[in-house]
Amino acid sequence: MTPRRAIGIDLGGTNIKGGIVDRDGRILHREEMQTGAERGPDPVIDDLAELVRRLGSAAPSPFKGEGRGEGQSGAGVVGVGLATPGPLDLRNGRIIHAANLPGWKDVPIRDALAKKTGLRVTLENDANAAAFGELSSGAGRGCQHMALLTLGTGVGAGVIVDGRLLHGHFDNAAELGHMILVVNGSPCPCGQRGCLERYASADAVVRRVRDEGPREPQVEIVSAADVARRAAEGDATCRRVWDEACLYLAVACVNIQHAYNSQRIILGGGLSLAGDFLLEPVRRHLHEQTWRLHDDVPEVLLAGLGSDAGLVGAGTLALANRE
Amino acid sequence: MTPRRAIGIDLGGTNIKGGIVDRDGRILHREEMQTGAERGPDPVIDDLAELVRRLGSAAPSPFKGEGRGEGQSGAGVVGVGLATPGPLDLRNGRIIHAANLPGWKDVPIRDALAKKTGLRVTLENDANAAAFGELSSGAGRGCQHMALLTLGTGVGAGVIVDGRLLHGHFDNAAELGHMILVVNGSPCPCGQRGCLERYASADAVVRRVRDEGPREPQVEIVSAADVARRAAEGDATCRRVWDEACLYLAVACVNIQHAYNSQRIILGGGLSLAGDFLLEPVRRHLHEQTWRLHDDVPEVLLAGLGSDAGLVGAGTLALANRE
Repeated sequence: MTPRRAIGIDLGGTNIKGGIVDRDGRILHREEMQTGAERGPDPVIDDLAELVRRLGSAAPSPFKGEGRGEGQSGAGVVGVGLATPGPLDLRNGRIIHAANLPGWKDVPIRDALAKKTGLRVTLENDANAAAFGELSSGAGRGCQHMALLTLGTGVGAGVIVDGRLLHGHFDNAAELGHMILVVNGSPCPCGQRGCLERYASADAVVRRVRDEGPREPQVEIVSAADVARRAAEGDATCRRVWDEACLYLAVACVNIQHAYNSQRIILGGGLSLAGDFLLEPVRRHLHEQTWRLHDDVPEVLLAGLGSDAGLVGAGTLALANRE
Repeated sequence: MTPRRAIGIDLGGTNIKGGIVDRDGRILHREEMQTGAERGPDPVIDDLAELVRRLGSAAPSPFKGEGRGEGQSGAGVVGVGLATPGPLDLRNGRIIHAANLPGWKDVPIRDALAKKTGLRVTLENDANAAAFGELSSGAGRGCQHMALLTLGTGVGAGVIVDGRLLHGHFDNAAELGHMILVVNGSPCPCGQRGCLERYASADAVVRRVRDEGPREPQVEIVSAADVARRAAEGDATCRRVWDEACLYLAVACVNIQHAYNSQRIILGGGLSLAGDFLLEPVRRHLHEQTWRLHDDVPEVLLAGLGSDAGLVGAGTLALANRE
């Protein structure tokens, strides 16, 4: 079988990551650059096309010329996978709008990049791409049913059902950070109240500790890592906020269990850098919170690919779409 | 194309409903009998086999002898669809256990009935079968992504993703009645706290009104219909409990929206007999509770098939599995 590769790109609000990805989800070559999203879509799409050309020519292809017939660039690659913030219109390959790409509205990015590169482009929401990356070569390997929660500024998510990404009728399934866990709870910028991400994102734990009032300057809390460290050291407020974040994550896991009956739930993003200090209380709360009627509790694991999940997932999605 | 029919059976704790179902979900002939579940599985499976024989011979077949090659019964039918309470082991065709079938444990009902009838048997969870029925010929017709909530003693659910029932890794997906909406809320017999069905089932609204203390005997509340009628008449407690049930249903709809991005959410079961008195406040709360980021709010509708949904779904599932 011909060794197949694709170019994976993760377009973020701050950085663009690109790489050559093989079918096992390995990154054979990589490049990173600033997005400059404030310039608007056109110059950024030009940069993406240049990145695709550089990656294509840098790719160490064992089969010279493979894929050349598909366009002027992309030695040895079967296409491009592009992960971007959403919501997206997948059918038409458009970014509808994106909080991290200010001013970008209804951008036909898939076809624009395909035209500039001569390669087939597969567009996917960044959290979904990350879930597919974890499925391909991370903590979800071998699963048919899994969910990824990325615990960062907010809570992103992607869900795999029967081995495929779940998109739903409006292409916007698995927005699990906006699952309501507290009826009439904390107001969320999305317009809802009591969303999971108001209690269990990296930003939420910092905000919730700060909401408790001023602290001594030497123990200022600026990041979720600070909250975790102070909680481990015994600070009562940090311990309570951290434990509540783990409790809400566990309740979200119960709801994921009953919604999708996933085999695994994978935790990624900034909060997951706390490792076992996050995983152990989430698992403990999950086993306390879940039902006793049936033995269908998902395994909860830390993500395996870190911040490369979106790039890897974009690449493996592009490969999957050519098979 | 040959007109195809299947036998659909809905095995409940009290009654068994059987019928001949065509590909449009029409019931051409039907029969109902008591379950007698307390006799244990074997005599009930004998009764089911007899029912299949009677339905098969009663079926008005335009093609005499069609399907005969598949067994000794079932004129003109391609198989049997059997809806039962769960949880089920679908791969092995077993009822693991069932609250409504006391003492039934690990019953290999699919193969036992197939052996007795000579027909292929498709086993499905009753709420899932009802969802498939609504998809085939009820309020979900034409959808690829929908969810059914049946608001009865508890809250049952079935979810269609990409036109197919969602089962998940453990065969037990879409147990949405046990979605936790109140962290550390009302204890549920399932072992969890704060499940949707503690707030928004037919039983829950009766219980919650009664929990408010004794009432005048002439306004005794014995059913959800009593709560709805008294709420409509202006009783403050009934109004509050009813409105809260609608609010919790709306929050569940928001969570279904973000989990599956369903096009439609269908409300069935006893509580749905209240019609617009249920539907209108649920829709109003949904539009107040859901986000403003993206226009992906599902349509909420009343079920179309009433208590026939399980029977129709079982029959159309058996047909779908032969196509």
